[in-house]
Amino acid sequence: MSPHLPLPLELVVRNGVVVTASDTIRCDIGVCNGRIVILGENLPRGEREIDAAGRFVTPGGVDTHCHLAQPMTPPIRLADDFESGTRSAACGGTTTIIPFAEQKRGGTLTHALEDYHARAEGRASIDYAFHLIVADPAQEALNEEIPRLVAQGYSSFKLYMTYPGLRLDDRQLLELLAVAKKHGAMAMVHAENSDSIARLTESLTAAGLTAPRFHAASRPMLVEREATHRAISLAELVDVPILIVHVSSSEAVEQIRYARARGLKVFAETCPQYLLLTAEDLGIDDDYSGAKCVCSPPPRDSSSQQAIWNGLAEGLFTVFSSDHSPFVFDGTSGKRPGGKEVAFPYIPNGIPGIETRLPLLFSKGVLEGRITISRFVELTATNPAKAYGLYPRKGTIAPGADADIVVWDERPIVLRNEMLHHACDYTPYEGMALSAWPAYTLLRGEVVWDGLEFIGRPGNGRFLRCGLPALLPQSRR
Amino acid sequence: MSPHLPLPLELVVRNGVVVTASDTIRCDIGVCNGRIVILGENLPRGEREIDAAGRFVTPGGVDTHCHLAQPMTPPIRLADDFESGTRSAACGGTTTIIPFAEQKRGGTLTHALEDYHARAEGRASIDYAFHLIVADPAQEALNEEIPRLVAQGYSSFKLYMTYPGLRLDDRQLLELLAVAKKHGAMAMVHAENSDSIARLTESLTAAGLTAPRFHAASRPMLVEREATHRAISLAELVDVPILIVHVSSSEAVEQIRYARARGLKVFAETCPQYLLLTAEDLGIDDDYSGAKCVCSPPPRDSSSQQAIWNGLAEGLFTVFSSDHSPFVFDGTSGKRPGGKEVAFPYIPNGIPGIETRLPLLFSKGVLEGRITISRFVELTATNPAKAYGLYPRKGTIAPGADADIVVWDERPIVLRNEMLHHACDYTPYEGMALSAWPAYTLLRGEVVWDGLEFIGRPGNGRFLRCGLPALLPQSRR
Amino acid sequence: MSPHLPLPLELVVRNGVVVTASDTIRCDIGVCNGRIVILGENLPRGEREIDAAGRFVTPGGVDTHCHLAQPMTPPIRLADDFESGTRSAACGGTTTIIPFAEQKRGGTLTHALEDYHARAEGRASIDYAFHLIVADPAQEALNEEIPRLVAQGYSSFKLYMTYPGLRLDDRQLLELLAVAKKHGAMAMVHAENSDSIARLTESLTAAGLTAPRFHAASRPMLVEREATHRAISLAELVDVPILIVHVSSSEAVEQIRYARARGLKVFAETCPQYLLLTAEDLGIDDDYSGAKCVCSPPPRDSSSQQAIWNGLAEGLFTVFSSDHSPFVFDGTSGKRPGGKEVAFPYIPNGIPGIETRLPLLFSKGVLEGRITISRFVELTATNPAKAYGLYPRKGTIAPGADADIVVWDERPIVLRNEMLHHACDYTPYEGMALSAWPAYTLLRGEVVWDGLEFIGRPGNGRFLRCGLPALLPQSRR
Amino acid sequence: MSPHLPLPLELVVRNGVVVTASDTIRCDIGVCNGRIVILGENLPRGEREIDAAGRFVTPGGVDTHCHLAQPMTPPIRLADDFESGTRSAACGGTTTIIPFAEQKRGGTLTHALEDYHARAEGRASIDYAFHLIVADPAQEALNEEIPRLVAQGYSSFKLYMTYPGLRLDDRQLLELLAVAKKHGAMAMVHAENSDSIARLTESLTAAGLTAPRFHAASRPMLVEREATHRAISLAELVDVPILIVHVSSSEAVEQIRYARARGLKVFAETCPQYLLLTAEDLGIDDDYSGAKCVCSPPPRDSSSQQAIWNGLAEGLFTVFSSDHSPFVFDGTSGKRPGGKEVAFPYIPNGIPGIETRLPLLFSKGVLEGRITISRFVELTATNPAKAYGLYPRKGTIAPGADADIVVWDERPIVLRNEMLHHACDYTPYEGMALSAWPAYTLLRGEVVWDGLEFIGRPGNGRFLRCGLPALLPQSRR
Repeated sequence: MSPHLPLPLELVVRNGVVVTASDTIRCDIGVCNGRIVILGENLPRGEREIDAAGRFVTPGGVDTHCHLAQPMTPPIRLADDFESGTRSAACGGTTTIIPFAEQKRGGTLTHALEDYHARAEGRASIDYAFHLIVADPAQEALNEEIPRLVAQGYSSFKLYMTYPGLRLDDRQLLELLAVAKKHGAMAMVHAENSDSIARLTESLTAAGLTAPRFHAASRPMLVEREATHRAISLAELVDVPILIVHVSSSEAVEQIRYARARGLKVFAETCPQYLLLTAEDLGIDDDYSGAKCVCSPPPRDSSSQQAIWNGLAEGLFTVFSSDHSPFVFDGTSGKRPGGKEVAFPYIPNGIPGIETRLPLLFSKGVLEGRITISRFVELTATNPAKAYGLYPRKGTIAPGADADIVVWDERPIVLRNEMLHHACDYTPYEGMALSAWPAYTLLRGEVVWDGLEFIGRPGNGRFLRCGLPALLPQSRR
Repeated sequence: MSPHLPLPLELVVRNGVVVTASDTIRCDIGVCNGRIVILGENLPRGEREIDAAGRFVTPGGVDTHCHLAQPMTPPIRLADDFESGTRSAACGGTTTIIPFAEQKRGGTLTHALEDYHARAEGRASIDYAFHLIVADPAQEALNEEIPRLVAQGYSSFKLYMTYPGLRLDDRQLLELLAVAKKHGAMAMVHAENSDSIARLTESLTAAGLTAPRFHAASRPMLVEREATHRAISLAELVDVPILIVHVSSSEAVEQIRYARARGLKVFAETCPQYLLLTAEDLGIDDDYSGAKCVCSPPPRDSSSQQAIWNGLAEGLFTVFSSDHSPFVFDGTSGKRPGGKEVAFPYIPNGIPGIETRLPLLFSKGVLEGRITISRFVELTATNPAKAYGLYPRKGTIAPGADADIVVWDERPIVLRNEMLHHACDYTPYEGMALSAWPAYTLLRGEVVWDGLEFIGRPGNGRFLRCGLPALLPQSRR
Repeated sequence: MSPHLPLPLELVVRNGVVVTASDTIRCDIGVCNGRIVILGENLPRGEREIDAAGRFVTPGGVDTHCHLAQPMTPPIRLADDFESGTRSAACGGTTTIIPFAEQKRGGTLTHALEDYHARAEGRASIDYAFHLIVADPAQEALNEEIPRLVAQGYSSFKLYMTYPGLRLDDRQLLELLAVAKKHGAMAMVHAENSDSIARLTESLTAAGLTAPRFHAASRPMLVEREATHRAISLAELVDVPILIVHVSSSEAVEQIRYARARGLKVFAETCPQYLLLTAEDLGIDDDYSGAKCVCSPPPRDSSSQQAIWNGLAEGLFTVFSSDHSPFVFDGTSGKRPGGKEVAFPYIPNGIPGIETRLPLLFSKGVLEGRITISRFVELTATNPAKAYGLYPRKGTIAPGADADIVVWDERPIVLRNEMLHHACDYTPYEGMALSAWPAYTLLRGEVVWDGLEFIGRPGNGRFLRCGLPALLPQSRR
Repeated sequence: MSPHLPLPLELVVRNGVVVTASDTIRCDIGVCNGRIVILGENLPRGEREIDAAGRFVTPGGVDTHCHLAQPMTPPIRLADDFESGTRSAACGGTTTIIPFAEQKRGGTLTHALEDYHARAEGRASIDYAFHLIVADPAQEALNEEIPRLVAQGYSSFKLYMTYPGLRLDDRQLLELLAVAKKHGAMAMVHAENSDSIARLTESLTAAGLTAPRFHAASRPMLVEREATHRAISLAELVDVPILIVHVSSSEAVEQIRYARARGLKVFAETCPQYLLLTAEDLGIDDDYSGAKCVCSPPPRDSSSQQAIWNGLAEGLFTVFSSDHSPFVFDGTSGKRPGGKEVAFPYIPNGIPGIETRLPLLFSKGVLEGRITISRFVELTATNPAKAYGLYPRKGTIAPGADADIVVWDERPIVLRNEMLHHACDYTPYEGMALSAWPAYTLLRGEVVWDGLEFIGRPGNGRFLRCGLPALLPQSRR
């Protein structure tokens, strides 16, 4: 008599090449109540079946750096709200996002969270959590609000070393790092030297050098290198892990290597734009279309691209996210504020990328032989989930995890913005040749993208409370 | 009606915390015909059951650097043959080994393999493959024998930069690296500068400095650093991955970091002795008991220990093995050749460690919070299996893999040689306090160690043909 | 007929081993009107003669980092004014000093200079110039005052990255570096991270850890390393040379090496305390006598000492100065403010050293074989004079230079504070064994120290207008 | 009455800007019996006068790396013997050379020296010493011959890590470094990995890639980097200074920086070809004229050029020499052996440069603002003289030194081979725009080049016995 499984399987993903951050296994995946309950060979028939024969099957992407529905100064606004943003994510294989809830100076984090929850609720079609952006670290926030919020499932916060209204000074950084240490939260750092950028911007502007490409000139590598070194040093002082977001340059990579070699717990994130764009994409001469690629830090050069690829391949980077921050190129709310071409300091910073993140890395990284497919999973799903306390519910394919799954279709594709599902009118990768795209995206066992159409539902996405980060070893003694 | 599994489960490991190189999952493991066929929650009852509730369950260890039954110059002989060596391995949680088959100058590799197969057959109680040691890279070996052997399942070879009779010159190293590149084999390198050791040994001996501790003085860090740099450079020239074995020192670590930062495919192995012993264990003054810790490279200092721990924690090292090379301390065949205390150049090089490798790293690394448990699995099982083409049959817990499994028992233990199952009369870690030991070791679903007794059978171990290394990304384009 | 010299020689220093920053030559030195007019063999008899047979003869020391008569918050005051300070300097072989004129916030640099000139005039017995300390870089200072002062002979200014009332933010640093670039002035940087020190100080104090030794704990190496990296980065941005003063630690040295390897024009200064003291000299437990060695940055460890020696020997450092900043240990105005033992944050920072600088480096550096005697001259006289625009009038022994000369007496000496001529009641080097002391110090041809007694005159020291720095190559094209 | 000088001045160089390795002084130079006896202002009239008003006056160049009259395998021969070579040197401002005396395997050093002395005598028009090339370090040479020769004034030897017939293995290198340490001699190392070059050469040749430019491909940077690291390591083991000759690449520079940062006594030399040529000068495609720039190591790329300039400017390099090794391009004895274009492995290695060394560095280094003029003197005269025990007789302008002097004429020059005085039919710098050339070269007070013509005399050059190197500090205690 053959043994019975305790539950009927509502779905079986059959015969795929199932990939985790360490393993590549041919087996079936059995799903029940939206969770993976079983991995095995020759599983019994499920109520639904997905044929993944010969296909890579990876965990749904976890995009831990994206901006949706974040209020801006009018007329500027982000192109994507939670509805379009999560739809776009789903169609590109991402099933969990952690956007930011930004505190306003003078306001509380709690108030910010209420506001952002209202923006997400009923609109999100994939699961989501929130990072806090701490812009005003008053004593009350440090001593009471943040500890309470960490306990309530908001266990990460972002610290800006630049941008007016967001920039923290060294003392504030130290205080917040101490709070992270005390409560086990994850501190994310945007590392650029603010005063240097301000001074260069003024000099360039004064000299009439205002085309989009001077955005890159206003934020040279050393501006990032300096802040990276400083962030590492402050974290070393407090003795707390940090995660440097959107690392763009070979010089910042050097600083992170220095830290790691010393045994410091410094994690790093990078994004597709630092692999695939360069400062030349900001335009030659005064071509305003370069505004499409204005983001911070700016794309660098081919030597930095190589340094980033090396770091992805050999383990330096922990997380690969999109930094999705979409602004339309036409119209009045985006790259042409009020409909006009503006000097570079007034171009909204950011590019869209929530949908293209996984396909780009899968094609350019995995299929072109730069990283292993397990490393792809680790960077895009497992580590992000671990870094922010969503693991093992999210980020892997294993019994007990949510059935967030991507089945890949390997075929030649020329990327066009019209294929994408965001509310932005361009992609910086227009015309790029890819080799794969998700055939299916499953959220908790439900197909939300079937290779042709988005079939998820706004409001179906659930809010996730984050536990503590789980990247580091825990002593038992 | 609940669905049927296709096969009855001969064994279920139930309720454990199953660990892979990336995941930590509470689930059951179902075994059929010696293979893992299913991972899931609440699996149906197996014919046999192992209760792993609350216990870590890891893949059986894969020890890819150990010496068994290798012929020496009489009266010297290795303490362990395949019977005692594999028994000892099993009792410490290791289920696969890759010892060395050493070519003699003037002899063929094929002949060496026949000899070693004869030594293993009928004696091994766990599975095994062979690395080749190439001592005589004649054209015939380079052009025909090695390619044929790679195709037959001997896909790794070790290159010595020191030791009379084994040492290869730079030209030979280049030729063999080119063969590794052409046929996809893995080149392992023992990196120490031979002439430097020879000269220092002569100087020390001439000065009457012959106690065991001068073994360390005869092989200072720079001797390893230089050869490591040279091996990296030669591999860079040929453009082929290499694996530097038994890295012992902070200066060698620096060289490997340099290589990795440049994008070179340089892998590295270290061993317990470089985490837990120092040169002081070779004795102070003329204490001959220091001979127990004579191995090459020698243990270094606490600063190198820290550098090695950092490298283990943050990803620099790929493999953690034992370099088991046991010689008795008493008697005539080991550390006292002919029964006499000898000058350090005549002390056989090597220490026992095949049984203690996993418990030491589990206690000192995982339970004391220096590395994650997934990293433990990656270093001791998954990566070794991938590095030498045994993955995914060996090295992980996943459907399709051999049911080689360790269930851990966390309890205080004081390590004593009498607890061990090798044929050596000492352990260098005598008296060390540990916090865990395998409760069960399973080889292909059979218990070979039950926490009290070895219950495997000599001859039950199977020879494994190695495929090509699988640590690196493969381009599809 | 033998040729006539155009002038009678008022003094000949005869038969010495004359040392410059590159040469060691046996010859006589002929002096006329306080200037060296001739170097040669067998010079004709001078009106006065000094027999230097078999002795090293070096240029008078140029101490470009010392604090004299700088106003403090009562009851604290510097032990030395210009009279005692320059007397002490002369007796130790120093003939030129550049102390600081400190701007007060809200006040002008011009006003500060007037004040300091009044303090020096009639009191100084050796020559002097002034560095500016810019504490309040208002636009008027940047655009008009500093340029005017540079033209008037005040061509260097010091930028503090720490200390309340002095600390500049990154923007201010950038503005001042831009002024330095535009007008060719030398920017000196005190590199420590202010907020880190403040936070550590508060933590230590809150924990009751207030003994002198916690001064070192409040300013760990990384605090210096971070600020050093930042200063280098800001200077790189502006593309201007800088000089990092009083480098104390191996980690700061690493940053300077990084800069130099990249081709940046980063100069560095160190001081005797970083060669000869360690943090242990700040006392073990709560020994208040450790207050004698409280200075910033604090002395480090033996490994940093070695790094500093290496940097001195092989060319990394450009300047060696005293950072003389003397406070009495007894009494009410110094290390015991108001006569009381105070918590470390209230101990005045600084140690005496203007008289011992040359003898310490001569004994420990030259005579113990760590640096060449030409390097001694380069570090203590030639480079300081070049760095601040006093060369070739000061800093070398050559025709045309002022006859500022030291003749050395090599003999065993045990250093005692009673031998010194400052107004401080201790030396941190009490009891140290030295091997040489100046036999004569000559200022513009006049003996001011004869090996036994100070015979200079207050008021004889002249104010020197500094030209532009001359360390760097000048393009002719 | 004004004082008398003891001697009449046979020559006064008047009103020049006299430059030493540390100082730049306006003064006159008084010469007597071929030696400088006095430096001063307004010296009395000499028997001869040279008007140097407004001109830089530097020490005669000391070229410590050049090959003259070294026997080759026929039909190959060096274009310059001692007559043409020293004439050429003099016309370019060089007054002292140290060419090589090459031991043949099986022959003695003593015999080699006899041979080379015969080649020099009666022909040299400037002063000369000899380095030994040790090709056969038999015990007798190590224990008796070399020590004897060091005592006799041959205190430096060159060790080759490549070239058939010259290459030493690690053990031989160690033995010779130990001899250098014991007897205080200077070991010069040609650092390239021999086996790597051999293998690449065979591969390229087998593939038909034989044009001159493949010479560079056969000796990539890593070949130099590896050998540099190894040489440093072997010297570290023996604890002896070494001097790495003709450093060409950024990667070798990195290794030297690594050594210096660790406090090792590693000196380095570079040459004009590594500042001014790149691998592209070896020709594009199969242009045989690229053979003119075939030398070893080969010229690299612009990034290595920058690394070398940085090292020259900031003190990493100790010596700048020519590595003059001239072969005619036409005819049968040089770059076209037997009159034919040959595959790159058969092109004689070397380029002419003994005459252009100083003018190139003066124009491109000093006058274009890359290095100070004191650094120019240090690199081209003072340090070479110190490194090989010729100082202070040679290498500086100071009382007691030989009156070897260059007076510079700053004017635009287009370099043409027809202007040069060697016996080679080309210069690799043909057509390069320079800004200065020697107006006078004086050897021991005699003009040998007057800006228009060579007026020295073959046979007037004297053999110099070298003392011990004097670059390092000497302990007195």
